[in-house]
Amino acid sequence: MKKLYAIAALSAAALAYSQKPLDKVEPAFWWKGMKNHEVQLLIYGKDIAKNEIEISDGIKAKDIQKVENPNYVFVTLNTNEINVSKFKINVKNGKKNVGSYTYELKERNPNSANRNSYTSKDLMYLIMPDRFANGDEKNDSQPNLTEKANRSLPNGRHGGDLRGIINNLDYLQNLGATAIWLTPVNEDNEKGYSYHGYAQTDLYKIDGRYGTNEEYRELSQKLNKRNMMLVMDYVTNHWGISHWLIKDLPTRDWIHWFDDGDKGFKRSNYKITSQFDPNASDADRKIALDGWFDTSMPDINQSNPLVLKYLTQNAIWWIEYAELGGFRVDTYPYNDKEAMAKWAKAITDEYPKFNIVGETWLSSAGHISAWQKDSKTGEAANYNSNLPSVMDFPLYDELPKAIKEKEGWNNGMNRLYNSFTNDFLYPDINNLLVFFENHDTERWNEMFNNDPKAYKLAMTIISTVRGIPQIYYGTEIGMRGDKNKGGDADIRRDFPGGWKADTQSAFSTASQTAQQKEFHGFTQKLLNWRKGKDVIHTGKTKNFVPQNNVFVYFRYNEKETVMVVVNANEKDEVVDLKRFSEAIKSSVKGKDVISDKEISLQNTLTVPAKTSMVIELK
Amino acid sequence: MKKLYAIAALSAAALAYSQKPLDKVEPAFWWKGMKNHEVQLLIYGKDIAKNEIEISDGIKAKDIQKVENPNYVFVTLNTNEINVSKFKINVKNGKKNVGSYTYELKERNPNSANRNSYTSKDLMYLIMPDRFANGDEKNDSQPNLTEKANRSLPNGRHGGDLRGIINNLDYLQNLGATAIWLTPVNEDNEKGYSYHGYAQTDLYKIDGRYGTNEEYRELSQKLNKRNMMLVMDYVTNHWGISHWLIKDLPTRDWIHWFDDGDKGFKRSNYKITSQFDPNASDADRKIALDGWFDTSMPDINQSNPLVLKYLTQNAIWWIEYAELGGFRVDTYPYNDKEAMAKWAKAITDEYPKFNIVGETWLSSAGHISAWQKDSKTGEAANYNSNLPSVMDFPLYDELPKAIKEKEGWNNGMNRLYNSFTNDFLYPDINNLLVFFENHDTERWNEMFNNDPKAYKLAMTIISTVRGIPQIYYGTEIGMRGDKNKGGDADIRRDFPGGWKADTQSAFSTASQTAQQKEFHGFTQKLLNWRKGKDVIHTGKTKNFVPQNNVFVYFRYNEKETVMVVVNANEKDEVVDLKRFSEAIKSSVKGKDVISDKEISLQNTLTVPAKTSMVIELK
Repeated sequence: MKKLYAIAALSAAALAYSQKPLDKVEPAFWWKGMKNHEVQLLIYGKDIAKNEIEISDGIKAKDIQKVENPNYVFVTLNTNEINVSKFKINVKNGKKNVGSYTYELKERNPNSANRNSYTSKDLMYLIMPDRFANGDEKNDSQPNLTEKANRSLPNGRHGGDLRGIINNLDYLQNLGATAIWLTPVNEDNEKGYSYHGYAQTDLYKIDGRYGTNEEYRELSQKLNKRNMMLVMDYVTNHWGISHWLIKDLPTRDWIHWFDDGDKGFKRSNYKITSQFDPNASDADRKIALDGWFDTSMPDINQSNPLVLKYLTQNAIWWIEYAELGGFRVDTYPYNDKEAMAKWAKAITDEYPKFNIVGETWLSSAGHISAWQKDSKTGEAANYNSNLPSVMDFPLYDELPKAIKEKEGWNNGMNRLYNSFTNDFLYPDINNLLVFFENHDTERWNEMFNNDPKAYKLAMTIISTVRGIPQIYYGTEIGMRGDKNKGGDADIRRDFPGGWKADTQSAFSTASQTAQQKEFHGFTQKLLNWRKGKDVIHTGKTKNFVPQNNVFVYFRYNEKETVMVVVNANEKDEVVDLKRFSEAIKSSVKGKDVISDKEISLQNTLTVPAKTSMVIELK
Repeated sequence: MKKLYAIAALSAAALAYSQKPLDKVEPAFWWKGMKNHEVQLLIYGKDIAKNEIEISDGIKAKDIQKVENPNYVFVTLNTNEINVSKFKINVKNGKKNVGSYTYELKERNPNSANRNSYTSKDLMYLIMPDRFANGDEKNDSQPNLTEKANRSLPNGRHGGDLRGIINNLDYLQNLGATAIWLTPVNEDNEKGYSYHGYAQTDLYKIDGRYGTNEEYRELSQKLNKRNMMLVMDYVTNHWGISHWLIKDLPTRDWIHWFDDGDKGFKRSNYKITSQFDPNASDADRKIALDGWFDTSMPDINQSNPLVLKYLTQNAIWWIEYAELGGFRVDTYPYNDKEAMAKWAKAITDEYPKFNIVGETWLSSAGHISAWQKDSKTGEAANYNSNLPSVMDFPLYDELPKAIKEKEGWNNGMNRLYNSFTNDFLYPDINNLLVFFENHDTERWNEMFNNDPKAYKLAMTIISTVRGIPQIYYGTEIGMRGDKNKGGDADIRRDFPGGWKADTQSAFSTASQTAQQKEFHGFTQKLLNWRKGKDVIHTGKTKNFVPQNNVFVYFRYNEKETVMVVVNANEKDEVVDLKRFSEAIKSSVKGKDVISDKEISLQNTLTVPAKTSMVIELK
């Protein structure tokens, strides 16, 4: 308890800034005609709970909730009962009006509820905004934000921003990217190492160094005009320790405390298998879920209904405000799973097609599938997540080994084959994110020393198997980075050409190096081909047991069939086509999308060493 | 088709032996009062189908089925409609009686239907009868069986037999074994390499070199008198190529043929994941399931209703006749899975407590659990196996690595912890067979060079985790064998003392070597302790994340708690007991079953290097 007082003292200091009894209302505005017609306003101001809340226009709050910290009042309104667009929330001390806020209920965009979201038709392109392109040098440092730009620091703020992304939409679109996932861009006002954004300090405000809320929406709208979409990286599990709500906690249990920890802190043991493990000890499960992800990231208590409502409304606010096309949710299995099932349901009730992929970093399909909505494996653990999409980490684990290794019963291409045999555990196999790297992993091109052959095999695979392929900015131009040696900074290098000072730019084909061109050209070609291919997006799959380290699989629907041949061997292989007759059927030829060559499908097929073919059957 | 004629020619030769039109009736007798009151008799004789079947005592067949081979008739009787114990089945050519068989419906043993079977209370002890003890030298070779005894051949018949087991029941009982699983002992009259018994040539007759049907029943009855039981190794997937039914196939589709194979033979690809894999190609699935396990083992077609009935009745016949206590079923996932679901249901309908464990040699809990009755994972594949028990191969895979390795996020004891996190996938976690070796694997004591410490850790683990522990004959006296160097023969060495010529016997403590004594003494003590421990048999489990390569778990029920501490480190470890307070509760001391020492449970516990403790909490 001693530690709590330390935080309480900190809160008092924070409150010194707060003179008026109405400093913040969150969400700052809302919309008419939402399916859930209630909205809960968090109203913040010094000792506000000692006053009365009065609403104009005869509007009655459905509920007014006070909590242990008198600086907060939670007011629930039924928007169905409100017939005006704007009304006043007044704070009264007796008859004296000591504060006031004009609340607005906006009109929704047409078709907002029924918006499209990313699916297996899309290619998700992951950007760390600080490291992609600096489109607005003026916002690189901000007077009210502690960490200033310093591109010479690997872990510093480099100045990349939303304008940089907006400026490069042609590049992204031409590449074939359709869903743009940005790592968090809300304010992260930590002292240092803040560029990653996962220690958010304001959930309703874009970090000034990235731009403004309006620019964020502008990016989204410009993407939508191109039939692309913006995917927000949502973080429910933890906020930054400098978040204003953390500094002046509404309730002690807004976050998870460890009385025997260091100022409430204990590090998670990261054993998130404990979520479904009937044998896990309570102590281990508690530290896994309630332990902090890192010292600067207090663990949010989603099981507190006020917190859950805050997270739910904030999520919906961003979808509605910024016209978002989906979420990626950080550290999903670290959260309270029952609360998250409600969170995901509330969002998908409001937007039935809205896709949410959880970062389910677990090693087995048994566990990962249990996180997907309506899974039988979840049912085995008496759980339904309501989470539409999960990440195929087993495939990520196997891919580099599969491509590096010689064949064996469980080695080489058999790793991929084996991995896909678990597909039956997933209720919606098309809604898996498939990838070979992201902002937390070793760079593929580091592992393979920029071998274009290895890259092309991996790209072919994630672009043609079931699910939503995801690539990480720069992989398409051969960017590398060694997490083991250089830490996170090394796998988050600046995209060449994103800064005025850059001497070389990879954003235009004309200025790309020969190596960049080779990587980029292949990627662009494959992804643009994929865009129109229903058979890849939603077709069925037929996998053939790899032989001689050649993995052959087919994607097919009623209209067409695509044959993918991956030769991971160091030598050319001659494949006897007879084995595949159930899939090739009466086709005698096809076209290899990669080489543009016509391919005979009679008798045998010669596949060059370390090469893949993507053959559209004629 | 050409190959088929070759087999047909072989059949003609076989039939030369058959002069009378009624050579065999199977099952040779049956019982009154079975839940399923129908029995289908296979009647075999030269051109029998060209005659009429007539049954005495006014009994009418429910169905008489003729097939493409005229040497067979299948006669279905409703035993409920038969009021006599014995009746005649006559084969009539016009008015001439050309053959006759007296059929008997026997009385069942009381409580036969409700017999007990093995559960997690038991210790299953696996014996290869040819290699355990030669109790009857007279039966070592048989005039009518091709392969003669030759103990000097590693892959030859060594002479072990049922009498040898019967003679050593005291040894088995004293050790703590309660369920005795014998590898198949039905007639296997292949030319050579027949001792393993998996290429059966008569499913209704014990191989003469092991003994007689009566001796098999005697063994079972003698076990039952000791509250022990006999577990039959049942093989549905394949029979020996010299099986009389294979040599004169009733129908061509009694077995799986490959017209493009070698005399019908094609080897399985062993990719049994294809059973639940929605992406598997039909061709791969077909070769996995219908391909032969080996050249001498034609793959039985369980989807043929006559075959399925034959296998079902044969299984029930042995249970009823030999008073069996359970089945282990070979190569379970290689069978037709819908047929096997019917097979398992028919048996467990007849004997509701009867346990059947399938050899589910797969690498992931996702797949293995799908083979267990009523599993959600099975449901995900639209399948319910009706199979009560499966084998915990992932634990088998992880155990040696867990004990050999240094600790790491996924290494050392964390392998075991991680493996157990999948328990939620199994609908009946107590009905898993847990083991560290069997007759198909490297010997544990070979891998660990007879290190008693490693052995004791492994024995402690399989004896105290959930499930049915299974050991393999000789492991308890430190027997070793190197499959990689010596092949199967080396992991199936003769048990010392089982042959008159043996100079040393491990069957009595008095004559054991010091090393044998150390292994045996530990095993006997632990298993006998386990016998009475409900808390181990059916208690819940609480696992704590390993720290410093020490894995601590608890088994508990309402009455008691057992704390198991496994220190896999090369050095002593001091364990802080505070972490375990939710399990230790108010206990301040306990007794280590292994060392017999009283253990203080206050503050810390010092665990010697490579040592386990099994502490009963006071």
